[in-house]
Amino acid sequence: MRDVSMTEVRIEHDLLGDEPVPRDAYYGIQTQRAKQNFNITGVPISHFPELINSLAMVKMAAARANRETGQLSDAKADVIEAACRDIINGGYHDQFIVDLIQGGAGTSTNMNANEVIANRALEIMGHVKGEYEFLHPNNDVNMSQSTNDAYPTAARLAIIFASEPLSTALSDLIKALEEKSREFADVIKMGRTQLQDAVPMTLGQEFGAYAVTLREDIDRISYAAGLLQEVNLGGTAIGTGLNAHPDYPDLAIDALADISGKPMQLAHCLVEATSDMGAFILFSGVLKRLAVKLSKVSNDLRLLSSGPRAGFNEINLPPMQPGSSIMPGKVNPVIPEAMNQTAFQVIGNDLAITMAAEAGQLQLNAMEPLIIYNLLSGMRMLGEAIKMLETKCVAGITANKEHCENTVKNSIGIITALNPFIGYQNATRIAKKALHTGRGVVELVLEEGLLTAAQLDDLLQPSKMLSTRRIKPRG
Amino acid sequence: MRDVSMTEVRIEHDLLGDEPVPRDAYYGIQTQRAKQNFNITGVPISHFPELINSLAMVKMAAARANRETGQLSDAKADVIEAACRDIINGGYHDQFIVDLIQGGAGTSTNMNANEVIANRALEIMGHVKGEYEFLHPNNDVNMSQSTNDAYPTAARLAIIFASEPLSTALSDLIKALEEKSREFADVIKMGRTQLQDAVPMTLGQEFGAYAVTLREDIDRISYAAGLLQEVNLGGTAIGTGLNAHPDYPDLAIDALADISGKPMQLAHCLVEATSDMGAFILFSGVLKRLAVKLSKVSNDLRLLSSGPRAGFNEINLPPMQPGSSIMPGKVNPVIPEAMNQTAFQVIGNDLAITMAAEAGQLQLNAMEPLIIYNLLSGMRMLGEAIKMLETKCVAGITANKEHCENTVKNSIGIITALNPFIGYQNATRIAKKALHTGRGVVELVLEEGLLTAAQLDDLLQPSKMLSTRRIKPRG
Amino acid sequence: MRDVSMTEVRIEHDLLGDEPVPRDAYYGIQTQRAKQNFNITGVPISHFPELINSLAMVKMAAARANRETGQLSDAKADVIEAACRDIINGGYHDQFIVDLIQGGAGTSTNMNANEVIANRALEIMGHVKGEYEFLHPNNDVNMSQSTNDAYPTAARLAIIFASEPLSTALSDLIKALEEKSREFADVIKMGRTQLQDAVPMTLGQEFGAYAVTLREDIDRISYAAGLLQEVNLGGTAIGTGLNAHPDYPDLAIDALADISGKPMQLAHCLVEATSDMGAFILFSGVLKRLAVKLSKVSNDLRLLSSGPRAGFNEINLPPMQPGSSIMPGKVNPVIPEAMNQTAFQVIGNDLAITMAAEAGQLQLNAMEPLIIYNLLSGMRMLGEAIKMLETKCVAGITANKEHCENTVKNSIGIITALNPFIGYQNATRIAKKALHTGRGVVELVLEEGLLTAAQLDDLLQPSKMLSTRRIKPRG
Amino acid sequence: MRDVSMTEVRIEHDLLGDEPVPRDAYYGIQTQRAKQNFNITGVPISHFPELINSLAMVKMAAARANRETGQLSDAKADVIEAACRDIINGGYHDQFIVDLIQGGAGTSTNMNANEVIANRALEIMGHVKGEYEFLHPNNDVNMSQSTNDAYPTAARLAIIFASEPLSTALSDLIKALEEKSREFADVIKMGRTQLQDAVPMTLGQEFGAYAVTLREDIDRISYAAGLLQEVNLGGTAIGTGLNAHPDYPDLAIDALADISGKPMQLAHCLVEATSDMGAFILFSGVLKRLAVKLSKVSNDLRLLSSGPRAGFNEINLPPMQPGSSIMPGKVNPVIPEAMNQTAFQVIGNDLAITMAAEAGQLQLNAMEPLIIYNLLSGMRMLGEAIKMLETKCVAGITANKEHCENTVKNSIGIITALNPFIGYQNATRIAKKALHTGRGVVELVLEEGLLTAAQLDDLLQPSKMLSTRRIKPRG
Repeated sequence: MRDVSMTEVRIEHDLLGDEPVPRDAYYGIQTQRAKQNFNITGVPISHFPELINSLAMVKMAAARANRETGQLSDAKADVIEAACRDIINGGYHDQFIVDLIQGGAGTSTNMNANEVIANRALEIMGHVKGEYEFLHPNNDVNMSQSTNDAYPTAARLAIIFASEPLSTALSDLIKALEEKSREFADVIKMGRTQLQDAVPMTLGQEFGAYAVTLREDIDRISYAAGLLQEVNLGGTAIGTGLNAHPDYPDLAIDALADISGKPMQLAHCLVEATSDMGAFILFSGVLKRLAVKLSKVSNDLRLLSSGPRAGFNEINLPPMQPGSSIMPGKVNPVIPEAMNQTAFQVIGNDLAITMAAEAGQLQLNAMEPLIIYNLLSGMRMLGEAIKMLETKCVAGITANKEHCENTVKNSIGIITALNPFIGYQNATRIAKKALHTGRGVVELVLEEGLLTAAQLDDLLQPSKMLSTRRIKPRG
Repeated sequence: MRDVSMTEVRIEHDLLGDEPVPRDAYYGIQTQRAKQNFNITGVPISHFPELINSLAMVKMAAARANRETGQLSDAKADVIEAACRDIINGGYHDQFIVDLIQGGAGTSTNMNANEVIANRALEIMGHVKGEYEFLHPNNDVNMSQSTNDAYPTAARLAIIFASEPLSTALSDLIKALEEKSREFADVIKMGRTQLQDAVPMTLGQEFGAYAVTLREDIDRISYAAGLLQEVNLGGTAIGTGLNAHPDYPDLAIDALADISGKPMQLAHCLVEATSDMGAFILFSGVLKRLAVKLSKVSNDLRLLSSGPRAGFNEINLPPMQPGSSIMPGKVNPVIPEAMNQTAFQVIGNDLAITMAAEAGQLQLNAMEPLIIYNLLSGMRMLGEAIKMLETKCVAGITANKEHCENTVKNSIGIITALNPFIGYQNATRIAKKALHTGRGVVELVLEEGLLTAAQLDDLLQPSKMLSTRRIKPRG
Repeated sequence: MRDVSMTEVRIEHDLLGDEPVPRDAYYGIQTQRAKQNFNITGVPISHFPELINSLAMVKMAAARANRETGQLSDAKADVIEAACRDIINGGYHDQFIVDLIQGGAGTSTNMNANEVIANRALEIMGHVKGEYEFLHPNNDVNMSQSTNDAYPTAARLAIIFASEPLSTALSDLIKALEEKSREFADVIKMGRTQLQDAVPMTLGQEFGAYAVTLREDIDRISYAAGLLQEVNLGGTAIGTGLNAHPDYPDLAIDALADISGKPMQLAHCLVEATSDMGAFILFSGVLKRLAVKLSKVSNDLRLLSSGPRAGFNEINLPPMQPGSSIMPGKVNPVIPEAMNQTAFQVIGNDLAITMAAEAGQLQLNAMEPLIIYNLLSGMRMLGEAIKMLETKCVAGITANKEHCENTVKNSIGIITALNPFIGYQNATRIAKKALHTGRGVVELVLEEGLLTAAQLDDLLQPSKMLSTRRIKPRG
Repeated sequence: MRDVSMTEVRIEHDLLGDEPVPRDAYYGIQTQRAKQNFNITGVPISHFPELINSLAMVKMAAARANRETGQLSDAKADVIEAACRDIINGGYHDQFIVDLIQGGAGTSTNMNANEVIANRALEIMGHVKGEYEFLHPNNDVNMSQSTNDAYPTAARLAIIFASEPLSTALSDLIKALEEKSREFADVIKMGRTQLQDAVPMTLGQEFGAYAVTLREDIDRISYAAGLLQEVNLGGTAIGTGLNAHPDYPDLAIDALADISGKPMQLAHCLVEATSDMGAFILFSGVLKRLAVKLSKVSNDLRLLSSGPRAGFNEINLPPMQPGSSIMPGKVNPVIPEAMNQTAFQVIGNDLAITMAAEAGQLQLNAMEPLIIYNLLSGMRMLGEAIKMLETKCVAGITANKEHCENTVKNSIGIITALNPFIGYQNATRIAKKALHTGRGVVELVLEEGLLTAAQLDDLLQPSKMLSTRRIKPRG
């Protein structure tokens, strides 16, 4: 960028002086300075189209509101809106080049948007890029705005958008789990608590529980996304609304709701809303909760498929790749393992978000870009991993029905079902004996004459051990 | 405990054999074993009366339900309920001696409750402690229950109870902040973004924002506590309800709602509910969010009171103790500092909770005691710290009004208010000149003839810089 | 404390005014104010005798140095040293009443020490408590010191002291693991990677690895404790040494090394050393590392003992308490579970420490008390948990030798040992066939004529699969 | 990849069946499966050349050792080594296409290396890619290795390599801080503790402390990198060395030390070394420690440059970009802010690493790829941010000397210097009076006749307040 010849550049000017910018670039001097300043992640804004689209929606909404309050001429408003529409339609995303992690509370991202929109609008007007006297990134595109309200508003909207494919992916995974729950409805197996054999259940109940636990999080995501609908647009620099027209905030928010199709609302205290990271923290907390659940499910899948011969061996995960460079025929639970790792990363990201949120000072949180980066990349990673888990693992799981049933028959844990009939103390004694002798519970109960064979047959019918049942008190 | 003579003990028996228990103890052999096994925090259950009361409520609800299904005789149900009532009224809390951090997913806590209730009930019946043939901790007190449903149900209820004084303390702090917001309504000062002078605001707006941001968390706590109302009572060991009567879950939950006065509900999938830690994670996430906000407010209070002569010096925190053992007259912001530290601890606890939640396996999460411990102790610490912040700091804050106003008058930041009238580029140039020469903005604008003195007077009236306003477009 | 009658109190005075203090208290007005200000954890300084002793050692060292520089009279130095000796010998610990979490960077802890020492010294001199005109907590006991050097110096020393019993407990656990390693030296079992059957090993190798991995951490603790030997004593308020005699720092550090028996050293840049939390972070990182390892070992013990019939069932943990309130005879891995929870808490504490360390500002870290609290309580918890794991779990573990050996015989994983002789592709095919047919590897290799029975016998001798061996290349 | 026509592909085969691979690809079927399976971060191995080079070094070392034990023919060893050399020289890096986050404990990364090396070697031999009958990725390139020893060995080496530019960047930053320390040696200013004015110091001392605190971490990085020199090469699948020749481990490690130029050593217990993540945890802990320090320094720089008129205003950070889209002339501390965010990310990554380390099970840690990913990307981010902080911030900092000196003159804190002469109680009274009246300390001391003007002049000479000094005891 530095070595381009002078014929290929245009000169732009800002507070710090002159700087050549590539002649064809839609971005301008401030974007370029930011590009030079920040090179930490290597991940540019363009990696997150939802954020770019949301920025364009905010700029479009602002232009509409400024036109209505009479601050912005129709001519300028028209081209700004047209330029924003181009971006929303997928254009010029490659012009958003600033690294996601940046100082300045998002100023560089906001200016990147202002500059690209201004230059695209100038182009529509028939001007040359950089002729800001006809349409200015700050005076016109950024009119009535500050980074401090435009950027977080766009970021919140972007997270709302990004939450939708995540919820869809999650919903698909849930359906796959429900499908397995139905498929495994008659596979009786030992339930386990603390990794110790407990009492019988079906594999269908187990997979059904995974579906239920994840389904709850669709509601939690929706709840947390709802809190992000409240924005500080119109608060300008610190929430006092300095330099905005009194009608502007309501007009802008209505326009934004209209353009985005989301029920965006104005926070009732814009000073608070400008520095408040609460909704981001909660959203991240919900992602973390989801990550914890997905990790737990993955742990379970790995446990249940452990073996094949020296493990639990209740289910088989579909083999996705040879498992080992040295051990032939080994197939490893690589998909749940990748899900686990993704979950750990999201949990780590939540900590980065927490620290960034805590670092806010006075009227602004300068660390907001890190928060946005981690939320957007965390959602994307989770979404990809969930799709992977569904299509490359859950959908292909099979059960080892016979083995599962044998573990129930041989178990000591079925003694629990006899508890109400022979008492906790007798049951304890029998269980201990079974453990030490290796003998079966039924055999020992019969031997002691505590119950008859018929009674045992009835009480230990698998189907009767899978739910509550009417039992006669011992007296 | 070990050195008591045989005349002061009674002998109890369990799976592992005989063990002497102090003759007067209401707890029994399993409690005692747990006491010997776990000595990690030194914090016994009795440190958290909400948990003890909730356990007693669960046991009372179970007894009622068991009576109604005909499983438990009226005589036994009467004395169990009476014993529970005694505990709820504050009795026998010192008999809950097990360390909060314990293996076994809460079995020891549940058995501590079963044993204390059984022995108190035996006492009411006129029997000697330990005569479990008349009323048994497992067969009777724990009837239709497992630790795996009774303990988490009680824990959820305990957290709901403990959230109430926390919300009350928070509410009081909010009121104190609102009071200060009104008191400081006419103290004009510079707002700051990224620690740099930005645009004017009032100190009242600043304190008002603190009140607003914290008030939101009362709703969040309430929302998260609401999710804890859903419990797995009746699921017994793994959620299948084995050994419970089909009518038991609904009867028990109704009784629990009645006894506790809280709208407790049965989870619709008890298998899921038995291992699910989601509501705890979210609740902890909300506590973390609150902690982050309180830390940010404390950071601000420390910044605003920095000085007295080489700092911001906008407010004075009430001196609570001499600040230094070497520097005479130094007064330090000790109260916000203690609030910060409490917040960091709560954030650390959230991580411990996260890891414990992730460590659940198959049908149970054995690490639940750590989760409960951190939530209950975190809420208590936060509650104490919030009260401290309110009464020993916020309530006594005073403003340095004159100093605040002077910083506005001398500021460069007021140039922003002129932005719509002289344009971003002119404004930038003036600001730069002011910074480098040390001269005032008004003076420079006049000198350049960009605006008249009358215009400047009007535009820079403090009251006009604190909100949106109608501005004529530049053209 | 507030309601004592005036005859039971003495009146003390400080910057904030008069305050009655219990007449018999060795602590004074500043301690009492701190007690009233901070009530967050409920854990007083007296909970950590290492910290009290270290404070007394620092005060004694300062007195010696001040005497040598001629600042402090022999008479005063004598009684201050005598008072410190009393404390080091265990006296007056109950007079250290301030909550560990406190604002003020430890000022209250330092003043608690200054006041108790002053009043004990006054008592020795024959004066009444509170007659500070004869010996003053600040002017005399705290001479040449600030909280900002005295407190962190004492804290570092306290952590060094507290690390010793931790290392001893760890060493005992390692010995118990080594003992088991020897005991299980001939128990052949399947090694597992990714929970899938891999290749054979002995249970002794497995336990030996636990011992090796933990032994490394004794060195790491020692290394990290070594970094804490560098202290800022003599730096006074901000490390510049204001109000200390030029000879004081060296004299004081020599005295401290002598009194404590630890090779304490003066940091070469006291300004840096005053605000630097680096050694605490690293020490906490080492505790976290140890916690992660202990958690992994505990996870393994729980996995290996899973069952008894539907799990791995390779080892038996000694039963410590009945496992379930509903499932008779169930024995749970409660001890490793408690170890896991302790580990999670220590990891959470590390986060609290990290945030506190990051929150330091300019010449001091005001959050140091939280760091000290978490390190001292974390070490204590870890020490208790390690002792528990050793005595109540590891020492009593037994192996299910026959079962272990059977899993090797039936395994597919032994095919790996044939890899160099039949090639990765043949081996892969055989393994796949074994998995799908349920047949044995040996049988299939013979059937295909890839190796002779004699060759197989030789290659699959268990003892030959446990280490490297000379193999003839396939060509 | 899926839509390539059959003429552009070759067919490869593995455990799961046939699969077309692009004809020109150096990678093979297993790499391709992994590419299809994992798409979580979008960051491929090729993003980290140190890792690729280290993999090639390990493969080269293995080939050398296998040649020496007679397992591998000279012909094969020659071409494998040549292929590895090509990679180390920068070739074929674009063929390392697998996502860094992957299930399988690194198998896909290891196989990616095996396949690229095999195909490059085949090419050198004059064969067509995919003709593995002449040289096989598993049988030959991976000979005597498992992913479980080759991958972690390469990863450790990669981290050692990556730590070098990080240390260099850090060293450059330290030099810049030292330069500023010299430049600001005579700028007297108020030191601050707890954000309150404390006692005088120089700005040079302040910057010097930053240099000192960071310099320590060069040693810590070196120490932690040293622990990574210990590797498990030769342990094969689970550390028992199955399928490796007895001489192989020593030969391979010597070769690796020779090739890499690093003093790599064989762990003394390879079973332990195979699953142990301790050195990674500690290394991450050191990165976290460095991050905490850099964040603290950045916080300080932002505090010290706060203003320009309503803040501390002691230093000026070089302006790197216009600070605000709405506030003209505002210059923000964007570089330290980006440093802060990087630090928070590294701290978050440390948590992801911690959780991954804790998730290891039995003989392996399947989550190792996440650990490697976070360490390598964390080091890169830190390195970039440190360079940014040095070149775009620290190097250009200037001091506001006059303002700094005025704050000392007007301070109350200088009373501390009088403490040994007028006593803590007098000093406290004077300080309080100065605070409430706004008058100067010197004036008040004179007024009360506590010291003479000459004495005050002497005691309050700035140069005398910056260090220890000989003081006459008060008596």
